[in-house]
Parts: sequence; C-alpha cells; structure tokens
Amino acid sequence: MTSDEAPLTERPYERRELRSTPSLVLVNTGDGKGKSTAAFGTILRAVAQGWPVAVVQFLKSGDWNTGEEKTCRGLGVAWHSAGDGFTWDSDDLDETKAKAVAAWEFAAGLIATDNHRLIVLDEISYAMTWGWIDAAEVAAALAGRPERVSVILTGRDMAAEVVEAADTVTEMVSVKHAFDGGIRAKKGIDY
Amino acid sequence: MTSDEAPLTERPYERRELRSTPSLVLVNTGDGKGKSTAAFGTILRAVAQGWPVAVVQFLKSGDWNTGEEKTCRGLGVAWHSAGDGFTWDSDDLDETKAKAVAAWEFAAGLIATDNHRLIVLDEISYAMTWGWIDAAEVAAALAGRPERVSVILTGRDMAAEVVEAADTVTEMVSVKHAFDGGIRAKKGIDY
Repeated sequence: MTSDEAPLTERPYERRELRSTPSLVLVNTGDGKGKSTAAFGTILRAVAQGWPVAVVQFLKSGDWNTGEEKTCRGLGVAWHSAGDGFTWDSDDLDETKAKAVAAWEFAAGLIATDNHRLIVLDEISYAMTWGWIDAAEVAAALAGRPERVSVILTGRDMAAEVVEAADTVTEMVSVKHAFDGGIRAKKGIDY
Repeated sequence: MTSDEAPLTERPYERRELRSTPSLVLVNTGDGKGKSTAAFGTILRAVAQGWPVAVVQFLKSGDWNTGEEKTCRGLGVAWHSAGDGFTWDSDDLDETKAKAVAAWEFAAGLIATDNHRLIVLDEISYAMTWGWIDAAEVAAALAGRPERVSVILTGRDMAAEVVEAADTVTEMVSVKHAFDGGIRAKKGIDY
C-alpha cells in the first residue's frame, strides 16, 4: 500500500479495487435446468468477441442432433461429442467409460494447445463421479491452463477439487420441472 | 382408463405417460449467475428449429452493447432493450419506472400477437418487485398466451404468481463468484 492510499477497511465496498483477469473458470452444477444452456448462452458472448470456442460433450452422442449443436456449429464453434448417448442408455459401460476417458484426453489437449479462448466441458462431472477420470487431474489442468483460456464445466455433483479450482460456481436448483408435471421434453426448448 | 391399460400405480416410473405440450413457461431466478445466459442458450435451440424469437430486456440499455445482443441479432432474434441502463445507475427513477411499464405493455403485446414461438422477458422480476408492474397481470398474460408461444422470464426474487404460472422454475444459487474474489466482469464471458 502506498502512502496516498486509504486503508482497505476505510474504503466503501463500491469503490473496492477490482482486477482484470485474462480468463475464468466457471462451474454450473446442481439438479436443475440451465447448467448446459447457461454455458451455451455464454458462447454467444464469446462469439461476439470473435473468440475461437470449442465444446466437448462428455455424455451426449454425436447423432443426438440437438439445436444447440446445430446453431453453435453455424456460429463457427468447434463441437465435439465424445459419448455414445446418455450412459444409462448404454449397453456397454466399458465402452462408455473408454469414451469418457478419451474425451478427457482430447479436452486436456484442447486446453493445453491454447487455440481457443473458451472451452465448454459439458456434463464432464459424471465422468469424475463414476471414477472414470481423476478430478485432481482435471483441477490441475485448469490451474495450469494457458492464461487466456476460459473453461466452463457443467454437470451435477461437480467434484470438490474442480469447485475449488473455479472462479465462479453456480448451483442450478430445481424448484419445479415440467417433467414432474408429466410434460415431455420439448424440441426448441429442452434440446 | 381403457380396460387393457394397467392401473397407473402398477406402472414403473420410467413408463409413465408423458404428454407433449405446444409451449412452456420457464423461470430462471435466484442470486447466482446463469439466469439470463440459460435463457440465451435456450434461444440457440429455438433458432435451430426455425422459430421466430424475441427478447425484451427490462433493465439493460439499448447502448449497453452486449455480446449476447450482437450474436442474437445476427441469428435473426428480435431484440428490444427497454431500460435506460441498470436502475441503480439511473438519476431518474420515475423515468425508469415509466420505461419498465412501457416494456411490459410492449411484451404483453408481443405475447398476444402470436408472431413468436419463444419470447424472453429478461430481468422482468425487478419491475414486479418494485411494484412497477403487477405480478398478477403478468401471470394472467402467461396463462392466456397463444398456445404455441413459450416464454422465459428471468431475474432475482421472481414473484410468486409468476412462479405458480410456470411449468419449470430453476433457482440459480451463487456458490462462489469471481467478483467476490475481486475479479472484474469479463467481456466475452460476463457480457
């Protein structure tokens, strides 16, 4: 503190010094809707800045054919679907595990390569929950990432190591869900 | 129930009958990040279906010039910013109130006109919290909307009447926020 600065405790909260950061790590977790869609909404902001953006989906199939994939590809987002559909639809858990591990190796390479300003690791939490990939290794990759690479990680029950490594963590809590009211997932809204 | 159907109680949960719906009302509320970005992420899905989409921003200025506005306009979304900047920046609360009331009248007209399949009412909750627009009137407009018009409403402290009228309600809870760590809002991620 230089002599002409007031002590921190005397400054009003509003005038607190904020620092810029070259990148951020965000986590969207919880049982509610909006974890992935908030990540996709953030992509709209990154694209507006001309940032190269990549998505790695850990649990959705390449032929799931979602609206978000279609529109993001049209915006120039590099989209990688690593899974073979939702795991609970899989007949072959070993294959699903192998694909999740491969997805993480691919994602870690994407982060390290420093070609993107925003990388979304969609539904990565499940692969850590099931022990397929090591949460400490993910946290280390986040901590050691190139300085301008922001990362958003989504999925329920995010590993504590990843929460610890993140700048911003939001828990999406389901207050009410149309499905519980007997309403089928709706194209254009839910996928 | 026809005679060849099993009683509902004997059916496994997974085989429960779900019904399709021509539209949904979603609410994103809470103190955490992701309320607006999840709405914008849903727009990616709607656009992929070729739906006409409109956004009405109740608190952000037309010259706020956000990334989400730029990218959404590029996707053909009709974007309407009703406010004159965040209210706590306003020198003229009466003018802010008048603009919020006008924004709601405009939004109610958009809903009734039935020209859009998805309408996002971004940060509308504040206008109800401050008593500028009537929550019961908003709920009535949602209940009486044309059947194929989906609506997403965002903002902290959403009025109970609107929560009641919604099919799906998510509370975004802040677990950790970069701002609390002294990090400034970042272009490309936060706006």
